[in-house]
Amino acid sequence: MYVILVYDMGERRVVKMLKHCRKYLNWIQNSVFEGEITEVKLKELVLGAKKFMKEEEDSLIIFKSRNERWLEKEIIGQEKNDLGTFL
Amino acid sequence: MYVILVYDMGERRVVKMLKHCRKYLNWIQNSVFEGEITEVKLKELVLGAKKFMKEEEDSLIIFKSRNERWLEKEIIGQEKNDLGTFL
Repeated sequence: MYVILVYDMGERRVVKMLKHCRKYLNWIQNSVFEGEITEVKLKELVLGAKKFMKEEEDSLIIFKSRNERWLEKEIIGQEKNDLGTFL
Repeated sequence: MYVILVYDMGERRVVKMLKHCRKYLNWIQNSVFEGEITEVKLKELVLGAKKFMKEEEDSLIIFKSRNERWLEKEIIGQEKNDLGTFL
């Protein structure tokens, strides 16, 4: 399954979330990840995230598509997929 | 066509981008919008955004799906679709 994941976290938890999501998906923008992932791994990602998320403040949205080909991606401006400059 | 739009803008341009995107799509998270849009309206959105984006710093990514039903959405934590508290 192909997913797009976006999060909006309190400042103190942003880096933790970023590092967590990197284990499973590809970083494509500030708080946006994408990639191919299994149902089991996605559950692991979500359960792991819930451990440090503040659910009354933070937000994690996952869009799932059964096939990457059903999604077309257009990028305007910078493509930021080099985590080296960020961490 | 159904789209998910995410942006990463310099601080000075964030509010402008938010207001611009609101004209076309539904706000669902910090810098994330989604919604049904025509090809023509999407071009208008992108051309409008390019006018104030700094393409060497900012980033705008649009995922397009021909049908919303091809995307399943899971939300963990807060669902922030009330712009009232933000603007």
